[in-house]
Amino acid sequence: MRKITCGEGEVRATSGMQVAEKLSSLRTLMAENDVDVLIVSNSDPHNNEYVAERWRCRQWVSHMKGSSGVVLITANWCGLWTDSRYYETAILALKGTEIELMRSSDMDTPKIEEWIKKELPDGSTVAFNGADTSVTQAEAWMGSLQPAGFKMRTDLDLIDRVWKDRPQPPCGKFYFVDEVIIGESVESKISRVREEMRSRKIDAHLLGRTDESCWLLNFRGTDIANNPTPYCFTLVTLDRVVLFVDSEKLGDDGRERLAAAGVEVCDYTEVENELRALDASTRLLLIPNHASHALKQAGNHCAIVKDRAFVTDLKGVKNPTEVANFKRILVEDGAAMVRFYCWIYETLRNGGEVTELSASRKLEACRAEIEGFRHVSFESIMGYGPDGALNHYSVDESSDKPVHQEGLFLIDSGGNFVLGTTDTTRVIPMGESTDLQKADYTLVLRGFIDLISLKFAEGATGAQLDGVCRQAMWLHGRNFKHGTGHGVGFGLEVHEGPQNISGTCKEIMKLGQISTIEPGCYRPGQWGIRIENMVHTVLSSENEFGRFFEFENLTFCPINVDLVEPSLLNAEHIAWLNAYNAEVVEKLSPLLDDAQQAWLKNECRPVEPVA
Amino acid sequence: MRKITCGEGEVRATSGMQVAEKLSSLRTLMAENDVDVLIVSNSDPHNNEYVAERWRCRQWVSHMKGSSGVVLITANWCGLWTDSRYYETAILALKGTEIELMRSSDMDTPKIEEWIKKELPDGSTVAFNGADTSVTQAEAWMGSLQPAGFKMRTDLDLIDRVWKDRPQPPCGKFYFVDEVIIGESVESKISRVREEMRSRKIDAHLLGRTDESCWLLNFRGTDIANNPTPYCFTLVTLDRVVLFVDSEKLGDDGRERLAAAGVEVCDYTEVENELRALDASTRLLLIPNHASHALKQAGNHCAIVKDRAFVTDLKGVKNPTEVANFKRILVEDGAAMVRFYCWIYETLRNGGEVTELSASRKLEACRAEIEGFRHVSFESIMGYGPDGALNHYSVDESSDKPVHQEGLFLIDSGGNFVLGTTDTTRVIPMGESTDLQKADYTLVLRGFIDLISLKFAEGATGAQLDGVCRQAMWLHGRNFKHGTGHGVGFGLEVHEGPQNISGTCKEIMKLGQISTIEPGCYRPGQWGIRIENMVHTVLSSENEFGRFFEFENLTFCPINVDLVEPSLLNAEHIAWLNAYNAEVVEKLSPLLDDAQQAWLKNECRPVEPVA
Repeated sequence: MRKITCGEGEVRATSGMQVAEKLSSLRTLMAENDVDVLIVSNSDPHNNEYVAERWRCRQWVSHMKGSSGVVLITANWCGLWTDSRYYETAILALKGTEIELMRSSDMDTPKIEEWIKKELPDGSTVAFNGADTSVTQAEAWMGSLQPAGFKMRTDLDLIDRVWKDRPQPPCGKFYFVDEVIIGESVESKISRVREEMRSRKIDAHLLGRTDESCWLLNFRGTDIANNPTPYCFTLVTLDRVVLFVDSEKLGDDGRERLAAAGVEVCDYTEVENELRALDASTRLLLIPNHASHALKQAGNHCAIVKDRAFVTDLKGVKNPTEVANFKRILVEDGAAMVRFYCWIYETLRNGGEVTELSASRKLEACRAEIEGFRHVSFESIMGYGPDGALNHYSVDESSDKPVHQEGLFLIDSGGNFVLGTTDTTRVIPMGESTDLQKADYTLVLRGFIDLISLKFAEGATGAQLDGVCRQAMWLHGRNFKHGTGHGVGFGLEVHEGPQNISGTCKEIMKLGQISTIEPGCYRPGQWGIRIENMVHTVLSSENEFGRFFEFENLTFCPINVDLVEPSLLNAEHIAWLNAYNAEVVEKLSPLLDDAQQAWLKNECRPVEPVA
Repeated sequence: MRKITCGEGEVRATSGMQVAEKLSSLRTLMAENDVDVLIVSNSDPHNNEYVAERWRCRQWVSHMKGSSGVVLITANWCGLWTDSRYYETAILALKGTEIELMRSSDMDTPKIEEWIKKELPDGSTVAFNGADTSVTQAEAWMGSLQPAGFKMRTDLDLIDRVWKDRPQPPCGKFYFVDEVIIGESVESKISRVREEMRSRKIDAHLLGRTDESCWLLNFRGTDIANNPTPYCFTLVTLDRVVLFVDSEKLGDDGRERLAAAGVEVCDYTEVENELRALDASTRLLLIPNHASHALKQAGNHCAIVKDRAFVTDLKGVKNPTEVANFKRILVEDGAAMVRFYCWIYETLRNGGEVTELSASRKLEACRAEIEGFRHVSFESIMGYGPDGALNHYSVDESSDKPVHQEGLFLIDSGGNFVLGTTDTTRVIPMGESTDLQKADYTLVLRGFIDLISLKFAEGATGAQLDGVCRQAMWLHGRNFKHGTGHGVGFGLEVHEGPQNISGTCKEIMKLGQISTIEPGCYRPGQWGIRIENMVHTVLSSENEFGRFFEFENLTFCPINVDLVEPSLLNAEHIAWLNAYNAEVVEKLSPLLDDAQQAWLKNECRPVEPVA
């Protein structure tokens, strides 16, 4: 799944005030506080990908949904920077407002700090809320603007003073996962973290990203819809582990489990005080991308260590239990997809109605029948026809459309299960397809096969792999503007690091990591294509040139062959495709009824190579 | 050409003292100064790739030549960190000394700062010479070690106190290049730099890398053998341009030219004082990778701006005059290569003697016949047989070997001409070749063709392109540990930024840049293979997906076909190869005599595809 819009629905609070009113109130406050430029983001104190409504300040100001976007307000101008995934969403949302769309994926759009330097006189004051802005982001803005003569304010939360009915932080319940499922005890993880800390000469490590706390302490949460990582911090020292969380969320069971593992519990709001109270000699590791500017300020009297986010590294390499569970759940997940496909085709054939929304609900229901289902791993992307070209598309009542027996249907979905997180994208034809549709599909498939069947030297970076995947599309004058893949958590977030597969990723691929491969091709107003599997990095061979890795495929879901134009593939691609679909039939059939098995067998029939 | 050993010969000063003596003297000084760890590099105040002998401190201490390597000395241990290009050189150099080789390309070798943190107690004092260490390197070491409790000394030059006959800075003459050759006047370049400075709100920019000064002021120098960039700094403000240089180097002509362009001249040693004298309100840009820690300290009272090395960007995009000159000179250069090939084969056929060294001299003589030849662009790599596997190999009297009518001969060489810098690598068979040699060669060639014939979306990074080039080799269990390509200067350095083609390069490829493509395959003790052309990034097409770029080939030098195993190539690869060699014949024949033409025609005969 491409990084998309937040899982939750509408921002309720926008109902009351219009954008113009909000901007006007904010400008009054800006003037009172001598602020010339206000930067407003959707970020929370953890720099989480999915943020609770309370922290969606940019969305509240601009009424523009979506995970990417920053609003910049001056006395007489307002702009929204967002990337190409959200251009169309932004155009719709900003219509009728004074807010100008700044297309950040375009080569000639200045960055926010460049725009400020160019458009405003030095000496101007630029404000953003340091409590909700990551150290990385804050340092980028401040490092660029301060030496250029701008004054910075990071201690103001002007939005809070205008947003009257701003939601409180969520208070969803925690649940704990047994060691037998997760493959490693809390004690063992703490011990491994401390071992790393000792060799890196670190006395205290604040886990800022919430999924790091979940991994370390084997719990999950329910603060945010479709996202298992609840609001909390963990501070690990060489002799203490402190979880900062609203303790009501834990329940008795949680408090007991944590106490048994020697973990102290403090209130969520205490983390800043706890950092302030650290001895100045403390060598503190705080990952700039996982912690807020305000928290860094609170710990700044300590010796701030620069080092890797090594807990992210530990979390990224899955243990054998996790891998085995991923394999089990992905077969179940594939069978659910087949049941869903059969339902769509059957319903339409029988003259029934299928809409994007009903399809989304049906697919969730198919997954919900699987044991250990918690929730979808993200809001399903049900992109029928032109909607498939909207990378961020999340269907709701207002955007819902009927699905007909024509065109292409892009389905990107997954589940969060006790046994792992899944993420699959497929495109199916709803009727006859055009040559251009087939060419687009087959070139995406070609890039997908080029990467999933690659062997690569140890040390290969995500960016190198990304290039391999794009080669076929580039040669045919096509491209996609999102990354080729991302790491996937074990029952945790559907996007996780350290690795990803994109043009700027310098991280190397490591044995045991789980990633997606998901090239795409989008024609706005027409259709979208994306094919996505999950893969496990394993050892392929070793020789005098070193070790070579390859991807073990984890996803078993038919790859449609009606859309394949065989002349765009070579014999190896076709052999891979036929072997894959044969394995899908073999793995899924035992979980399907006779009609579903028959459908699957036909869907997976071999493609004949061009003579 | 892969980044290799420095151009100059032996370090003269090593003759007097042995390694043990040097280490012993340094340890005495370390103890006197309460230094527990001394880090010694070969870096100069500009972080130049090629450094004058004066600054080759690591080489002086360890007797290990080569461009990469850092020595770390403690009271009872000494290690040399170097990358895989220099493992064999280092093993030979360190033999009989106490210095341990730390193989920095190996996955499990700790970085220097990690090693220090692991092996030494906190509170220890670590010293390096801040005057010769880049800001980037200094900040990496200090940022890692200081918070971990280590004390840092950057104000000591202990080497200087032990190295009795240390050479003075060089004082080679400057020469100036006419605008008609270089395509842009000094005034125009200064004006473009100031335009960038204004929009970035920069008041003063120190050009630390010497090639930036050469580019801006249209001069070249002779301080360092085979390298046209002399020791100097340029400080550009909105109303002054000051060149810091030993003014004797300029000559009357130079002083007049600079004065006419409004450029002031100050002594080289004055740069630090000039930075200290800047007003504290000055917004100063100093590129961390192009300036020393000591110079940063001198300017630290100013507002230090963080921004791109935009002069490197300007320099990297070649103007039409430069591109046209590159094209002219590379045809001449290719003809020189053919004359050289004919000489080798002819000499051996007639029973004469060819050695690596005589070949190197002959090739230089062939290039020297071309009008506008200044010097080789780097010490030629004449790697016969097993020497081809040594990436750094630079033949001298002691390593020279005869070339026989068997085995492979890797030749990586280039010239620095008035009309541009060249860099070409080829492998030729000296007799019958084995199947494994052919397979290695053909897979390198396949990767080379995959990249040189690629079309790629605007925004593609060097790392993505690198992956495309390696795919064929990876699939056949081969790899090479150097980058796939680098930028090339116009009559400037043979390696220049901002772009390169390697697994970790996030820089995007831009129209007008000149780069190399040079995959390789090395079997230590047996042979080495590398094929290298220079290419120009041009527009390929534009459609609804955006702009696509491709490489215009610039190098015309036959690609040997006796070594090609056609079954490892597809029809497109073979078509590319045959078209390339046909163009080589067409372009070079007019510059060759009849015998050379006949040889070339046979060398470039078409390869038949496998049926």
